[in-house]
Parts: sequence; C-alpha cells; structure tokens
Amino acid sequence: MTHIPSPSYSITIRVEIESRVGMFARIATAIGQAGGDISALDIVRVEKGKLIRDITVNARNEEHEKEIVKSIRNIDGVKVIRVMDRTFFAHRGGKIEIHNKIPLRDSDDLSKVYTPGVARICKDIQENREHAYRYTIKGNSVAVITDGTAVLGLGDIGAEAAMPVMEGKVMIFKEFAGIDAFPIVLGTKNIEEIISTVQFISPSFGGISLEDISAPRCFEIEERLRKTLDIPVMHDDQHGTAVVVFAALINISRLFKKDLKKFRLVIAGAGAAGTATAFMLSYYGIKDIVVCDRAGCIYEGRRQDMTPYKRALAKKTNTRRVKGTLSNALEGADIFIGLSVPNILRTDDIKKMSKEPVVFALANPEPEIAPEDAFPLVRVLATGRSDFPNQINNMLSYPGIFRGLLDVKARGMNEEVKFAAARAIAYTVKDEELHEDYIIPSIFYKKVVANVTHAVAEVAIKTGLAKYHNY
Amino acid sequence: MTHIPSPSYSITIRVEIESRVGMFARIATAIGQAGGDISALDIVRVEKGKLIRDITVNARNEEHEKEIVKSIRNIDGVKVIRVMDRTFFAHRGGKIEIHNKIPLRDSDDLSKVYTPGVARICKDIQENREHAYRYTIKGNSVAVITDGTAVLGLGDIGAEAAMPVMEGKVMIFKEFAGIDAFPIVLGTKNIEEIISTVQFISPSFGGISLEDISAPRCFEIEERLRKTLDIPVMHDDQHGTAVVVFAALINISRLFKKDLKKFRLVIAGAGAAGTATAFMLSYYGIKDIVVCDRAGCIYEGRRQDMTPYKRALAKKTNTRRVKGTLSNALEGADIFIGLSVPNILRTDDIKKMSKEPVVFALANPEPEIAPEDAFPLVRVLATGRSDFPNQINNMLSYPGIFRGLLDVKARGMNEEVKFAAARAIAYTVKDEELHEDYIIPSIFYKKVVANVTHAVAEVAIKTGLAKYHNY
Repeated sequence: MTHIPSPSYSITIRVEIESRVGMFARIATAIGQAGGDISALDIVRVEKGKLIRDITVNARNEEHEKEIVKSIRNIDGVKVIRVMDRTFFAHRGGKIEIHNKIPLRDSDDLSKVYTPGVARICKDIQENREHAYRYTIKGNSVAVITDGTAVLGLGDIGAEAAMPVMEGKVMIFKEFAGIDAFPIVLGTKNIEEIISTVQFISPSFGGISLEDISAPRCFEIEERLRKTLDIPVMHDDQHGTAVVVFAALINISRLFKKDLKKFRLVIAGAGAAGTATAFMLSYYGIKDIVVCDRAGCIYEGRRQDMTPYKRALAKKTNTRRVKGTLSNALEGADIFIGLSVPNILRTDDIKKMSKEPVVFALANPEPEIAPEDAFPLVRVLATGRSDFPNQINNMLSYPGIFRGLLDVKARGMNEEVKFAAARAIAYTVKDEELHEDYIIPSIFYKKVVANVTHAVAEVAIKTGLAKYHNY
Repeated sequence: MTHIPSPSYSITIRVEIESRVGMFARIATAIGQAGGDISALDIVRVEKGKLIRDITVNARNEEHEKEIVKSIRNIDGVKVIRVMDRTFFAHRGGKIEIHNKIPLRDSDDLSKVYTPGVARICKDIQENREHAYRYTIKGNSVAVITDGTAVLGLGDIGAEAAMPVMEGKVMIFKEFAGIDAFPIVLGTKNIEEIISTVQFISPSFGGISLEDISAPRCFEIEERLRKTLDIPVMHDDQHGTAVVVFAALINISRLFKKDLKKFRLVIAGAGAAGTATAFMLSYYGIKDIVVCDRAGCIYEGRRQDMTPYKRALAKKTNTRRVKGTLSNALEGADIFIGLSVPNILRTDDIKKMSKEPVVFALANPEPEIAPEDAFPLVRVLATGRSDFPNQINNMLSYPGIFRGLLDVKARGMNEEVKFAAARAIAYTVKDEELHEDYIIPSIFYKKVVANVTHAVAEVAIKTGLAKYHNY
C-alpha cells in the first residue's frame, strides 16, 4: 500500500530523442507501462535531428526508479543522458541557510553590528540579561536537538544521518511559525552528556525542541532539562504527538456527541509517543485506557519488560487490570490509538471493538493496519499519512506551541499549554465542518498555527510561564 | 582620540518644528555646536504649522548623544518627539535569521524535504557518513562559539551578553565568505565542560570558530579540540590575529626591502593574540622577538606570573634574554606589536627604537598609543581601527580561512594554512601599491577573501587536510 508513485521518489530523466513522429508517445507509454507517473515535461534544447527533453516521473521506490529508466533506455531512438533524483537534489548543500537581516556594505554598517558599536549592546545585556530576548536571536530561536537514536522509522542511525530530518524540522519551524531554529545533532548517546550539552548551549536559544531520542532515555532527558533550564523544553515525539492525538479525540467526542471521558481507549505502543499520549489522556480524566507494548497489556504488577515509566503508566491507566494481548484489550474498546509498529492490528481485532470503532493507525510510514483493510470496518480512520484523510501530524502542534511560548518569553512549558494547543487545533475545525473524514485540519491551513499560538501564549501568561513582562 | 563622532553612536531624533523661517538652521547650528555630525535628514510629515523631521546624528558616545538631544530641546519652537539609537535599533530581534532554500508550499514539497522522502537521504548518510557534507548544511556551516570570558575589550561579560558579538561574526562569515555560521554561547566557563560540549555538538558543523575565550584557558581548549575533532578548529583571537599581523609584517619586509627574519621585534601582550603571534613568528624563523606582559619581558627562568604557555614562549623567544620593562625591550627594536591594553607605549619608548620604527598599536578600541602621538615618530603605523590607515583586522583572515577549509572538507587545521593565508593577504597588495599607509588591504576589497580561500584550499590539500576526496 505504499506502492503509489510519490513525489518523494521523483526523478528527472534527461533524454535525447530522435526527431521522428510518435517518439514521445512511445516514451509516455513505456513510463506508463512501467507504472510511473509523469509529473513534468520540459524541452532543454533542440539539436539537428534531435530533441533534448527533461521528463520528471514519480516512482514508487528506488527499484522502481531504475525500472522506469530501463524501460526508456529500451526504446529505439531514445538515449538517456542523465537521471537526477529530485529528492537528493533538493538536499544538495543542505536545506537551510543563514541570512543577514542587515547588509554589511561598508565600515559604517560594520561599526553598528560589530565593533565598536556592538559593545554597547553587550553592556546593555550584561546589565539586563533579559534584553538578550530583545537584541539577539534568542527571542526567536529554537534548538532542534537529537542524538539520532530514534529517527523516523529508521532507528538509531547516528548524528550525521539524522541531520536531514532536523533540517526539515527547522524548515517547518520557519515556514509555519517564523521561528529561526537550528539543527544540533549530538555525537553522544549518554544521558548525562546529552543533558549537560543542552544545558551549556541553551543561553543562545529561547526554546529547546528535542527530537527522535529513543525511549525511555527521552523521558529522563526531557524531565531533567525542564527542571534545570529557564526556557521551554519539549520532546516533540512525546508531546507534539500527544497534543495532536488529543486534538483529534476532542473532535471524535464532538462528532460522536459523547463525553471524551466515557470512551474506552486502547493505545498500542509504550514508546515516547504512546507514553506521553497515555499520560496526557489520563491527566485529562479519561479512565478507561489500556496501553499495550510488545509484551501485551501494561498493568500494575506486571513483571515482564517494565521500566519506571511503564510502572507509572500502569498506575495511571488500566483500572480494569486487563491482561494479555492487544487483541484482548480491544474487546469492546471504542478507540484504538496505534503509536507502534506496522501491521499489528488485524481486521478481527477491529471486529471485537464497539459498534462504531475509531482507529488511529499512526505508525509511520507504514500504519498498524492497511487503511484499505480498516476503512470498511470503522466509523473514523486516521493515519499519519498525507495520502489519506485525517492525517495526525505533529506539525499541527509544535510550530504554534513554540511560537506562542517564544512570544511571551516563556520560562518553561506545562500541561496547560498542551491542552490549550490541542483545543486550538481541534476547534479550528468548525462544528458544521466536522465529519468522519475531517476530524483534524491540514497543516497548510495557516489558521491552525495562528490559533495554537494565541491559545498557548494566553495560557502561558495565565499559568505564570511568561518571563520578565507583566502582561 | 576616540572622540570623533561615529556611526556606532548614531541617533535618529524625531522633531516637531514650528513652520517658521530659519528653524532648521537653528537646529543644525545647535547640533554643530554640541559637536554632533548630521548624517541624514528626512521629512516624516507636514502638519498644520508644523514639520515633523527625522534627523540622524553621529555622536561621540552615549553621553554626547544626550547632550545633542538636550541642545535641540533647548530651541524654542522645536519639540523632540522621540530619540532612536540606531545601533540598538539595528540589533532589535537579532541580526541573523534562518532562510529555507526551498519553499514548503504543499505536501509534495514536504514529502521531499521531510518524511517520507528525507528517509532516503538519512539512509544514504548512514551508509556514507561523508555524504553529510553533500546533503546537509555541515559542508558549509561553522559554529561560532564563546564562553563570554574575553569579549572585545569588555572582559568576562557572560554568555548572553556575548551573543551580539557572535551574531556579528556570523554576519561577517556570511557576507564575506558565504558561510552559514551559527552563534553558540556557552553557559559554562569550565574547560572540561566547554571541550566536551563542543565535541558533542560538532557533528552538525564543518568547522569550529572559537571566539573571545580568555587566555590561558583558550590554549588548552583549542589544543584539545584540535586533537579530538575531525573538523578544523580555530580560536580567532589567537590565529586570526596572528595571520593578519604576519601578513602586515610580510609587507613591512617588502616595503623595507629587508628579510623579515632580520627585524628585531617586541610584542606587548601575552594573551591569546600576543602568544599566538609570537609562536607564529618564531615558527617562521624570526629570531629576535621579545614578548612583554604586565610583569615585563618574558625570559627563560622568569619566576613571576608564569604559565606553561609563557614558559613555552620564553623558550622560543628572547634569545638575548632581555629583562625588565617593555621600555627596556624596545631599545633598538625595529617593530613594536601591541596586542595588549590602551596607552602603555610612550613617545619616549618609540624614540629608543631603530631609526625607522614600525608601530602596530592594535589594542581595541583604544590603541597602545594615540595614533596622532605616534605618527610623527614612525615610518609605519598600523592600528585596529577603521578610521586610520593600515587597519589590522581579523576579518581579513578568518572568513577566507574557513571558506578554504570547508571547500576541501578539511579534517583539521595546521600551521601551513596560517602562513598561506597570511601570504595571500599580504600579496593582495601589489608591489606598485605598497606604501607606508597601505601595508594591508581593506576587508571590503573582496579579492582578499577569494585569495585567502584559494591559498588555504590549495595548502590544505597539499598537507593532507582534505577529507574523503582525492584532489
């Protein structure tokens, strides 16, 4: 089911075509028969008896890219000059850059932004440390930090290999929230070293966005950084996800016209996202939550494969003390929230659920169940993918959350911020718009970030997170 | 002598002027009499019987700004609406920002630069770590790092207060060398913590530019980082300065038509810059160098105020074992290089030097001797200031050095790079251009950075610093 030609496997093939009738039709046919999808067509130049064209084709995967190129090579009268992978091309030299807000044309310019003029700004900040928010990038900058241990679905791939994801996140911060973030990938996996490194570099930043750090290490790292730093710290894999899941649940409750606290929930996955989501839902007051990990239902007293965090989960959830497999837990459940691994949910499991089941199959990029298998059995299906309705996407939460926190120079982060953000996301979908296929807004609907920003800033002020200023 | 109105003390005064004849002349006269320098004049709007104007004035210092404003307030028929300090204004919100190289317009864009497309780039880098240079910002990015302990002439002002200088440096990297640098100010002064923090964040960067770290801590920090990291590390206060001083000395040698090794040199200051300069000159082969610090000449066997670095200096310099004060050391010296503190060089000291003395009075912003006092006594005078000829400015060296090193994906930094950079700077001034008032080119002459870049890249390849590629 990931086998739909996609722009993330997009290649531009430069071909030299003999000027004969019907040549392009033969190429188009070959690409079509190979399962490719032509997305753009350009003429590079015309030479004597030859036409040089760039053909951009979406493929399913890298294998498929090669098949498509091969099918073109086989056409008589067509020569493939070169093949460019557009995703790799988009990454050439990195995806972000620094931009000076003021030009440096002459020594007058320099004397303002550098010595001797800059010395006055330094002295001013030395006297009033909070002026760093006013005269440096601190007030608008977030460090996007990872140790590369849990990157996307790829696992522990190391610092350098995690950079493209962090740069992508930085782009999202900029595009959607105007935040100047910077990617910092750490050459250590040691908890103490990660914590101290983040502490020591924190004066440059107004916020710390932790990313793709494996559980359960991520819990301790975030907890201790929150306690020691005077800027907001948020592990996106935990809270970014929890907030968007909660937003979707608010809208499930609106759609079903039923109090959220009365639903029976099962969460698959006790990693960063599953744990944070379970805690948030429990904190909200949902009583009937069962969290399952690889070893089955998590309950108080379970011996196998426990951590301090799972023990805390066991205390806060599973009041009915359900044991056994995920399948057991799903008996009579209203909502399945998958934050785990591909293909662990069977259609038989869904059939055991209540009569209008809700399935969030959020494992990425391959969901817990193939959407086409789940669709006929559920009232609402949500995934993490952009090619199905109801995409549960962290991007809905973290840009607005950090924007709101930076706007009030927040000293930290709290639960209220998360709930405010979730509500803001949920209510961006109006009552009359709410629908089984529209329980969560699109990230490209810019109102979402604005709504989250305002809600977060407001609650941050109310709960005493705003530094320095009396709002 | 710093009392010349300067654009680094520039204010824009918005005034409401009654529409009477001769009003502006009165304002201009008042500003002139107060010693201010009108640099720009705008009309904001005309109201009934009133003219609203913005008058931009360069002042000498903040005191002087206030005097000028007061002198305007005293004029009958003129009301000062507001005063804006242009240097502070230039710093509002920080001086740099992040820019996305590719727009994120829709999910096609997102799927290339973020999930799912980005996963392929991650896997590629995981397999070939050196591809981080190709597909991430690593290949073009430098961390500008300080602990805020020796910022400009301000001393230990702390991390946040050092940010404006680091941002200024980042701007210079971008403007002059196209490098995407980022300012990291550290919340620790502990040597071990600084070293490990820089080590752990280094995978994001292609180079580390250390700044404004106090001596002698800076020596150990740089030394140990160079040994452990596989990217170039350079403490600018040391080597940036040493390189430019050496470039100026090359041109002194050309101007005097005398072998550089035959000059007698005195260096005042055994901090970061003085120490690195002395080592570089000694490494080059200049025999007669005497370094002086607060306690006088540094010689082998001196007891007072020594450090391991000063002991090493004593071994490499002062072969004549000169003792006593700076004044003693200057007896018969050809060249004075001041990298110390204001006003320690007296005209009598210069009179003791050889008959065509050269004085580099580089303490910043106040030189070791007032330029106007030194001028009549010397053949060549150089300072760190932009308002006199021969400005010895680090900006001539570090942008090109890092550009050259990044261009070859350098694994480190060595002495040859420094000499190559110095020669490139020096020979940017052609034989026929060389003159007592032109021994060093201007940073705004863009050829300098290009020349340094090429020279550094070439020598880096030759000396085995270039990673991965066979050039």
